[in-house]
This record gives sequence, C-alpha cells and structure tokens, in this order.
Amino acid sequence: MKTVRLGLLGCGTVGGGVVRLIRENASVLATRVGAPLEIAKVLVRDPNKERVPGLERDRITTDAAAVLGDPSIDVVVEVLGGVDPAKGYVEQAIDTGRSVVTANKMLLAVHGPELVERAEKAGVDLAFEASVGGGIPVIRTLREALTSDAVTRLCGIVNGTSNYILTRMRQDGLPFVTALKEAQDKGYAEADPGLDVDGHDAAHKLVVLAMLAFGARVPHETVYTEGIRDIEPIDHEFAARFGYTVKHLAIGQMRETNGKKSVELRVHPALLPTHTTLANVNGVLNAILLEGRALGPCLLSGRGAGDLPTAVSVVADVVDVAGARLSGAGGRMTRSVRLAETHLAPIDDAECAYYLRFQVFDRPGVLAHIAGALAEENVSILEMVQRGGGDARGEPVQVVMMTHVAREGALRRALAAAAKGGDYIAKPTHVLRVAPVG
Amino acid sequence: MKTVRLGLLGCGTVGGGVVRLIRENASVLATRVGAPLEIAKVLVRDPNKERVPGLERDRITTDAAAVLGDPSIDVVVEVLGGVDPAKGYVEQAIDTGRSVVTANKMLLAVHGPELVERAEKAGVDLAFEASVGGGIPVIRTLREALTSDAVTRLCGIVNGTSNYILTRMRQDGLPFVTALKEAQDKGYAEADPGLDVDGHDAAHKLVVLAMLAFGARVPHETVYTEGIRDIEPIDHEFAARFGYTVKHLAIGQMRETNGKKSVELRVHPALLPTHTTLANVNGVLNAILLEGRALGPCLLSGRGAGDLPTAVSVVADVVDVAGARLSGAGGRMTRSVRLAETHLAPIDDAECAYYLRFQVFDRPGVLAHIAGALAEENVSILEMVQRGGGDARGEPVQVVMMTHVAREGALRRALAAAAKGGDYIAKPTHVLRVAPVG
Repeated sequence: MKTVRLGLLGCGTVGGGVVRLIRENASVLATRVGAPLEIAKVLVRDPNKERVPGLERDRITTDAAAVLGDPSIDVVVEVLGGVDPAKGYVEQAIDTGRSVVTANKMLLAVHGPELVERAEKAGVDLAFEASVGGGIPVIRTLREALTSDAVTRLCGIVNGTSNYILTRMRQDGLPFVTALKEAQDKGYAEADPGLDVDGHDAAHKLVVLAMLAFGARVPHETVYTEGIRDIEPIDHEFAARFGYTVKHLAIGQMRETNGKKSVELRVHPALLPTHTTLANVNGVLNAILLEGRALGPCLLSGRGAGDLPTAVSVVADVVDVAGARLSGAGGRMTRSVRLAETHLAPIDDAECAYYLRFQVFDRPGVLAHIAGALAEENVSILEMVQRGGGDARGEPVQVVMMTHVAREGALRRALAAAAKGGDYIAKPTHVLRVAPVG
Repeated sequence: MKTVRLGLLGCGTVGGGVVRLIRENASVLATRVGAPLEIAKVLVRDPNKERVPGLERDRITTDAAAVLGDPSIDVVVEVLGGVDPAKGYVEQAIDTGRSVVTANKMLLAVHGPELVERAEKAGVDLAFEASVGGGIPVIRTLREALTSDAVTRLCGIVNGTSNYILTRMRQDGLPFVTALKEAQDKGYAEADPGLDVDGHDAAHKLVVLAMLAFGARVPHETVYTEGIRDIEPIDHEFAARFGYTVKHLAIGQMRETNGKKSVELRVHPALLPTHTTLANVNGVLNAILLEGRALGPCLLSGRGAGDLPTAVSVVADVVDVAGARLSGAGGRMTRSVRLAETHLAPIDDAECAYYLRFQVFDRPGVLAHIAGALAEENVSILEMVQRGGGDARGEPVQVVMMTHVAREGALRRALAAAAKGGDYIAKPTHVLRVAPVG
C-alpha cells in the first residue's frame, strides 16, 4: 500500500506533538487518509537536541533542501513560525506540487491571500487550522460546515493572554500591570507583551478569519486595533454595574451602505452583556462566535494555544490534505476560498453603542457641557452614573455614560468638542464600544 | 464534467432548505465537491403540495423505488425522520452502493451501529451531522478535528425545549407547567412534550455522540435518563444561592475501574457553576462540551434545531460524501468509526457531588437524623441552608445540602435510610447532581 510521506519543517514543541500524535494514532489515521502516514524528513536547527522519543536519527536533517528537494515527499508541514524563512519554504513546497499544512498565523496574516492563490494555481491544498484558535476547529467550520451559508459576522476572543489579564482584573480588581505580571509569571505572556496586549496578534488572526469568512484581502496593519493597556479596574466595576463584562474582541462584519459592500474589521476591548456565552469565556480560553445567514449564531470555544491542542489541529489538517492528495482531489480546499477585492470600512463609519468614562472637575455646568457636545452630534445618552465629587480636594469625578447606537465619527467629534472649552475635563475620556452581539 | 446525482427522501422544511441551499450555492459547492451537484429525484408524499420554488415537477415522485432503484443516483439524502420507512430506505441505499446523508437522530439512536457497519461493509459513507445539534458542527469535530485525539468526556445541552423551559423558570421564577405552556405557545415544544422534557430525545442524541466519541454501542433505552418535570422554582433559587445554574445535561465519559473500561452515559438535570460557559447557554440554544486528552475542553454552541441550520449541516455532509465518492475515497468516513463492545457503567457507580433538598417536619433531631444517615454511607456535607420553619402551622421546612463527591449507590442508600424511621421527612427529597465540569 502506498504511504503518504510527510516532510516536517520544525520540530519544536508543536512539531514534536505532531510526530507523537501521528505515531500514536497511526492505525486510525491510515483508515481516514486511505494510506499510512510516514514522517519521512524532519528539518531542525540543532540535530543533537533530544526530540520525540523514537524519532529515528536518519529522518532528521538541518538542510531544508533535503526536505523540499526530496520528490518523494507528498505533504509539507510547516511549524517553524515567523515569516522568514517559512515563507520561502512554503512557496517552494507549493511550487513543486506539494500540499502544505501550516500552523503559522504570522505568515498567513501577512501573506495569506497570495499563498492561497499560489496554491490554487499549483493545484495543491494549503491548510492552516492551527494558525487561529489553536485547537478550536474554527477554520474547518468556516471552510466546511458553513460551505452553503454566508457568514455575516464574526466576533472572537482570540488572544488568550489578553483574556487572562482582563479576567484577573475583573475577578480580583487587579490593575493592568499587576495582572500582566501575573500572566508573565505563569508563562501566559511574553517578556515583551506588546503583540498580545496591544491587539496585534488578534488583528493577525482576524485577517485570517476574514479571508475565509468574507473572502477579504486585507493587510493586517490596516485593521483598526486597540489594546487593553488603558483599561482600569474601575472600568470593570462600571461595566458590571451596567450589566456588562469587558472583553478584548476581534470583530468582523459585512456591511452594505448605499449598495456598496465593505467589510468592517476591528480589534478593541468591548462590553458584552454579562450573561452571554462569550462574556463567560474566561482565563486563557479563546472563543469565536460566527453568525451565518442560515445557521444563525455558532460559538466555538477552547484552548487557543498550547502545543498539544495546536498539534491536534495540525494532524487533522494533515489527514485532510493527505487524503485529498491520495485520491486526486488535491486543491479543492484551496479553490473554494473565494478571495475578492475588499473595501475596508473606515472606523469612523462603525456604528455601536458606547461606554464613556469622563473624568471631570466637579463644577456647575459640567454635565450640561458634555451632554450638549453629545447632543450636537446626535449621540443620545441611555444611562448615566457618577462617582465621587462633593469633596474639597478637587479630585476629578468619574462620570460614566452609556449611549444609544451612534456613529463612531460623530462620537469622536462630540468627544473632541467636549474636551474643548470650559476646562471641565480633567483627564482623557475612556471610550469602550458595546459589542454588536447579544 | 460528471455531476453527482442526489436522491432526496423527503421534502419538508429541512428538505426544502437543502434544495434551496444546494441551488443557491451551486458554484461554490461544485468547486468543493469537484463536480456539480444535481438534485435528480425527490421523494414526497403529496406531489401536489407546493415545494421549493423552481424545483421541477419531473424530479418529484411518490415512489421510493423511483429514487432507490435509479442506478444513476450517487448519494441518497434522507430527511424523512422516524425509524420507518426511513430505515429500509437507508439500508437499500447502502446495499446498492450509495453513500447516505441523514438528519435522522431517531434512526441513528436506535440503529446507528448496525447502519455504520452495514455502510462499512458496502464501502460507502454514512454521514449524519444534522442528527445531533442541528447546525452545530459537533459530529464533524468528533470525526475530523479530533481524529488524532481521544475524547475523555462530553457534556451537552442537547434539547432546546428543556433548555428553554429551565431558562424561563430561572429568569422569571416560573413553575415548570407555566414555562412548558409558554414553550408550547411559541412552538418550541410539542403538544406531547414527553420526548423532550423527560429526557428521551437527549438520550437519543447522547447515544449518537457516544458512538463517535467512544465507539460505544449502547441501546438508547439503557441510558440512565431523568427529565425536568420535578424541578421547582425553589431549586433554581437554591442553586443560584450556592453559585450554580440548573441545566439539563447529557453526559458521557470513559471510566476505568480496576483496569476495566466502561462508559458512563446519563441524562439528567444538573448544577453547573454559574460563571461557566455552558451555564450561560440559554433559551433554545444547544451546546456540547468535548474534552479531548490532547485538545483539552472544546465547546460548540448554536441552534440545535430549525430548518435552515439543519439544512446547512445536511449540505455540508453532502459535500463531504459527494467529494469522497467522486474521487473514489467513499467509505473512509464510515471506516474510521471504531465500534467496540461497550460496558455501560451502572448509575450506582457514578460519582459526583449532590444537591439534596429535603422537605422535613421542623422538629428536634431532624438534622441529626439526616446527617447521621449520610455519614453512615460516608456522604459528607459541604454546605447546608434551611428555609422556613418556626411557624405553628407545621408546614414542611426546606433543608438543602450540598455534598462532597460521593458514589451514587451510597447516596441512594443514605437517602433511603433517611426516609425511614422517625417520621421526619414530609415529602420526597429532590436530588440534583453537580456536573463533572467546571
């Protein structure tokens, strides 16, 4: 019986997990694929490092050409991470007619559409379940389960580090820096946490999801992105008081204004009603809510990172592309991604309800001044609560307003107007959006 | 280009949705399958009833033989529901070498393993995503995403009617009968609601899930099944006070006692910690939590019923089996279900924490009596709260206890002992299990 020969690029913790899972489940995988999977070559940097027990030394190489140049290799599995040299390797694998499985979200976020087109042209598959949401089968769901449906919106908690920090801040009233330190101590956050807490990692993942959900071809750096550094414990308190939980969300939706279609992509902290499922996804867990026109809402939640969950997703992809290749159906997966030129809606066109925390000097006329600036731009106030004030020390007073749905551009003009004149505003106003999902 | 010809058995609301989705998405489906899908024949009962607009009259037949006897039909889609005549039709389709897609949970629950084996023998696929959880891609996740993992536990809210009733009882303090009436008025519950509120529908779905997750071959009538008729508003109140939400759950887990493997399957109301994701799946929504050895927890949630969500799942299955058939890979899906002779663990062997609501006469010694009966069986009490008492009318007092984890058999002996002697117990004790997931 023919075997399907795999070339593995990288054998760190995810790669090691892939080797282990493929070997431990050899028999069931062979049944699903239609032939045994063989790990033929493994590219590593240091050949002397101890790898997976039982991985034969003669499979290991430090020479990429030994993997990519071996014509007997059917499927290339890329678990190196980063753009270089992964991109060149993946391109070479595609160009020489191999199907590719990758767990590399950075590569997909930066070069996803061009790699998909390259694979399409070469008639091979490019699978990347593990690039978003670790072990959560969201790519598979978008690609397969929703194949006869249209995704209208997606909304996800896709960065475990940020979710952990926000969860700890809310649970124990910790300031951001303390919660971040705790996350770093536990190994959930990097020493340089910017990619996570400033929202860039989430923007990368959103771009990959939007490519599948909407056919969107959007450079990740054009996605409106806000992190969580400015959130304070008091924001969690006020949010709870209004019946909300603060989460860091990646939101994508199709919009149609005056007959013109556009896609709205944004990453920012947002308020979710406390009793929604998404609001109760805590700690390092991730979750993605998909809304299909026919399907309605569908939430997928689980571990968004971690070696074994990621390896499980990689192996599921290997089974798909190996099976397709064996039966001559390679390339179908890639061909069904429908890329389209995409108009990205500017953030000023976004519409949602807002949480506004003004920090003002407690003096007559302050409320009239703020309410006037909002009214001028047709931003209407739903609820208001004030804390502090009445003391002699002149400490700023917290005034929190929840608005009805308003246009982002109008809100920004209103806030700019409120900040000017009268010397009422003590510190910059905190703005949080209310998520578009209930 | 060859087309894949479909024979549709049944064209009610789900079948109509399938026709619509296949036609509206013809182009993308053809790309995924590798050839266009053609709805060749549609079996209906009444040929004069208005069907999907645009469905040609010459495709419609009232004669099953016209579908099953047509050798040009590649894939049979069964959306009739019920065991008869669906079973015979599906068997005939399998025996004549067609792959089958079915949305029929009753058929799968009663005859799943034998149909899977029949399909395996015939080398065809049997796909049934729509049989459990409507539009939620749980079957696909078990079959594909978790292909290299071992499911250790699953826990689901799989009956929308019961979930709606419990949600309304909790939200507004409604008694069961009022919430049931409301569900019936809204069309969420049948005039005869027994299948839903007594847990049988959930047991059917659990058996199907367990077949995929554990290879379990278990008659659905042997699954321990409790419904929700006995839940009272006061149970929701006490549960909330202890930090829990009452949900109706289907639970499956692998157990190993003294080296002997068994599977534990049970359907009953249970307490979930209020802030877990599963506890916040409300209304008619369904959710299934899968726990994989490598993957960890993975929650899938969405509409568990409804014509369009179900049709989306049916079409996704059609794409899978049609594509596999076209490329000569038919039967792989079926072959990878690994059925095994299964030992079903008796409910007395189950271990969990319990919520016990005693209704007792308020007289000296009652607590000592109950606590003594529990202690005798090593059931230890974690928390206790009492309501009522001290009045002269002799109304029963509510005493609620939360226990540590105990064995079901021991608990039952303890409760039987408490009920005897001393004439303390006024009414039967309400027992709710605490779910094994946090």
